[in-house]
Amino acid sequence: MASEKQRETRRAEPLETFEVVFPQDLNPMHTMFGGAVVALMDKAAGIVVSRWARRPAVTASIDAIQFLTPLRQGQMVQISAHVVYVGKSSCMARVQVWGNDISSGDRHFCCEGYFTMVTMDANFRPVGLPLIPVESDEEKTQWEYARQIKQAMLERRDRARRMEEE
Amino acid sequence: MASEKQRETRRAEPLETFEVVFPQDLNPMHTMFGGAVVALMDKAAGIVVSRWARRPAVTASIDAIQFLTPLRQGQMVQISAHVVYVGKSSCMARVQVWGNDISSGDRHFCCEGYFTMVTMDANFRPVGLPLIPVESDEEKTQWEYARQIKQAMLERRDRARRMEEE
Amino acid sequence: MASEKQRETRRAEPLETFEVVFPQDLNPMHTMFGGAVVALMDKAAGIVVSRWARRPAVTASIDAIQFLTPLRQGQMVQISAHVVYVGKSSCMARVQVWGNDISSGDRHFCCEGYFTMVTMDANFRPVGLPLIPVESDEEKTQWEYARQIKQAMLERRDRARRMEEE
Amino acid sequence: MASEKQRETRRAEPLETFEVVFPQDLNPMHTMFGGAVVALMDKAAGIVVSRWARRPAVTASIDAIQFLTPLRQGQMVQISAHVVYVGKSSCMARVQVWGNDISSGDRHFCCEGYFTMVTMDANFRPVGLPLIPVESDEEKTQWEYARQIKQAMLERRDRARRMEEE
Amino acid sequence: MASEKQRETRRAEPLETFEVVFPQDLNPMHTMFGGAVVALMDKAAGIVVSRWARRPAVTASIDAIQFLTPLRQGQMVQISAHVVYVGKSSCMARVQVWGNDISSGDRHFCCEGYFTMVTMDANFRPVGLPLIPVESDEEKTQWEYARQIKQAMLERRDRARRMEEE
Amino acid sequence: MASEKQRETRRAEPLETFEVVFPQDLNPMHTMFGGAVVALMDKAAGIVVSRWARRPAVTASIDAIQFLTPLRQGQMVQISAHVVYVGKSSCMARVQVWGNDISSGDRHFCCEGYFTMVTMDANFRPVGLPLIPVESDEEKTQWEYARQIKQAMLERRDRARRMEEE
Repeated sequence: MASEKQRETRRAEPLETFEVVFPQDLNPMHTMFGGAVVALMDKAAGIVVSRWARRPAVTASIDAIQFLTPLRQGQMVQISAHVVYVGKSSCMARVQVWGNDISSGDRHFCCEGYFTMVTMDANFRPVGLPLIPVESDEEKTQWEYARQIKQAMLERRDRARRMEEE
Repeated sequence: MASEKQRETRRAEPLETFEVVFPQDLNPMHTMFGGAVVALMDKAAGIVVSRWARRPAVTASIDAIQFLTPLRQGQMVQISAHVVYVGKSSCMARVQVWGNDISSGDRHFCCEGYFTMVTMDANFRPVGLPLIPVESDEEKTQWEYARQIKQAMLERRDRARRMEEE
Repeated sequence: MASEKQRETRRAEPLETFEVVFPQDLNPMHTMFGGAVVALMDKAAGIVVSRWARRPAVTASIDAIQFLTPLRQGQMVQISAHVVYVGKSSCMARVQVWGNDISSGDRHFCCEGYFTMVTMDANFRPVGLPLIPVESDEEKTQWEYARQIKQAMLERRDRARRMEEE
Repeated sequence: MASEKQRETRRAEPLETFEVVFPQDLNPMHTMFGGAVVALMDKAAGIVVSRWARRPAVTASIDAIQFLTPLRQGQMVQISAHVVYVGKSSCMARVQVWGNDISSGDRHFCCEGYFTMVTMDANFRPVGLPLIPVESDEEKTQWEYARQIKQAMLERRDRARRMEEE
Repeated sequence: MASEKQRETRRAEPLETFEVVFPQDLNPMHTMFGGAVVALMDKAAGIVVSRWARRPAVTASIDAIQFLTPLRQGQMVQISAHVVYVGKSSCMARVQVWGNDISSGDRHFCCEGYFTMVTMDANFRPVGLPLIPVESDEEKTQWEYARQIKQAMLERRDRARRMEEE
Repeated sequence: MASEKQRETRRAEPLETFEVVFPQDLNPMHTMFGGAVVALMDKAAGIVVSRWARRPAVTASIDAIQFLTPLRQGQMVQISAHVVYVGKSSCMARVQVWGNDISSGDRHFCCEGYFTMVTMDANFRPVGLPLIPVESDEEKTQWEYARQIKQAMLERRDRARRMEEE
């Protein structure tokens, strides 16, 4: 793994992508199946990270997915993904999902979540990552928020281990 | 249908959307199945038109799809759709597809095509469309090109009818 | 590529195949998704050409797809594909689609289109094609019609190049 | 239910339909998944029966499916379905499946099976069926064979009941 | 193939697995597509046999599938699979399917069937199988029932051959 | 919502369900696509909760999904889901996933996660939930762990709001 000094800082272009809710995406309640929404988000996280890191990326963990309003058939789905945090050997993408009503043009926030991704070389071994610039207030806020999610995840893991040992 | 004078001119925001080529998208030659590529393009044409027209849109005809280089597993697929021509009751979207190699960042042009779309009201009847501004050289070139595709389509239809009558 | 003299003339058996419109084939307007219809047509074009040429076939271009009436859930879909034109290194299949109402037995024409296909050897390089007999009036009409579609495609390509150069 | 005298005799057009084995149809042994083959056969049985009876049809039982040789990726799949037996309120379709090697044109028998289908009216209640002509030796042989399958099914059901009662 | 004396007797753990009927599983009559039900059953037969035999398993034949009540959207599907019979080089799994109404908790029997499976070594050649203990009344009844299905299958095959020879 | 006193305590039967990794479940790295794994987990969470609550359930949030080892083609996937925490109007299911190697019988832990589910009445309005008995040490540990995940989620939400307000 390269030392911090050697790590390149490279801006990560945000990803915006679109889908339409088709009948085959629905659950029996006739809203978009949560598992299908997460699959879309996971794909977007993979694209935004691997495009930035120029490496294939796999998902290491998923946190803080919150579904606020359901997506309905015929709505356009807008998926937005940003690289918001970079650690030693993994990084975190924030993925947001909106539903767009075609006739009114109204947009409602559907859900968001944080995807921790690991990039790999040709032999599927984890490889180092560049850094991202963290300059604007929004970038600092998102970095801090993602860092706390990572921190909470590590603490949970520790607590889980202690509970198992007791 | 509103008269030309009453038709609103409304800029159509271009659409850019992304996919990844997964094993389930391949044909037996292990490149992305042409039918699956067209399905992606058709979805993009529907989104770019219905977002602009604020109406659900269905495909009336597809023309001039040319596949130049195949898409391979693991590549990112970039789909770009523009509304390039508006007629009395239909409009045409140009859809372009690129494949992106993740490691090199290289982008190659995969295919393009022209999708004639009809928009509908709540009772699934065709409804009028706004106009688009045609100002830049690129916009004028694309409008003219799409018009010729439409013209060729109408001439083909006439010739087909005459051949059937003989 | 073999010279014209050496090219075998081999009758291409037409293909007729069937599907049923299932809920997972629908778009949000509850008619069969255009992209799914084209995928069926593309598969049929691939079968009719590769069965005749005894080689795997890939789609080089798609032209003149016109949707006349939508397919509805539960309808039988009848897909008919013919090899109608053979050039130096590609050929063209005409694919027609009908919807069949089960109870009444009524059949309505749904859409048609022309698929230009290239056949390949084991190393995925384009290979030569046999010729087809063009004898009946219908065969001559279809050959001429396909030739004009190809001609229009080449002219469009030229015009596009000239427009780009200006 | 109409008496035998009143039942119309109507020839059932055989169905022949085609597919290609795509990567998404494979099982982990890289041959076509048996469940996917049965799904294709079931669809073909539904089409051949409902086209003949002019009614939607559902599967009541499946018997005597035997897989002889596996289907491999890239092969053309030829599915052939015949109505071979008609009882009071159900009928039986024989479905045969062949794999076709594209390059050699060789055809190998993959599997066959017998599907007992029930047709329904608009309220999803079973309705009577026409009869089929049974004239040729092949038709007589298939009718007798299907009758024995039905007989064996009824005997199995009786034996099962007796075993449960003991 | 090992002689009977050398064959290990190993209890086959029954398999119970669950699904939910989603919109994409429906046929045009809005009940779960029979082909999709058989695909679920085939997967369950493959799991129960390969887990017991510690080998990949493929389906050799399917018999006596009877659909009693349809599965409806939103119902939980409970699939239960048992190894009930072991022959020289194949074995038979009985697969039963229930639908569970979520609100009432009511369970109705949907269908059952018998799947003859063959296990394979790393080179996809059939390999020998262990035996199962047949001790309880239920085990003896199921063994005998499966044996009769196999017997009927072999007799049908003989009759079919004789009919073809005549 | 019923008061605590009136809430029934009802044991939640754990759910165990199985899948096989098929070629169509893979990502371009040829391990099971993370989004597809989450979709399986989400379905299992929905089944275990709705079976216990006798109500349809939708996902409100997903937390703490950690992928440890990838699932490979041909492996059996074992999914285990437990209701581990019940709040006023939502509950939490812990879902664990193992991969099983068929030949060796070896089982490796693939991933786990916590799904917060809300149950609904026939008009899709949230309804009250029964309680679960929390008696064994394992039940107490899991309840406490889930409670901390919920607590962390609420704190994150508060912090996010404060960061937005600043």
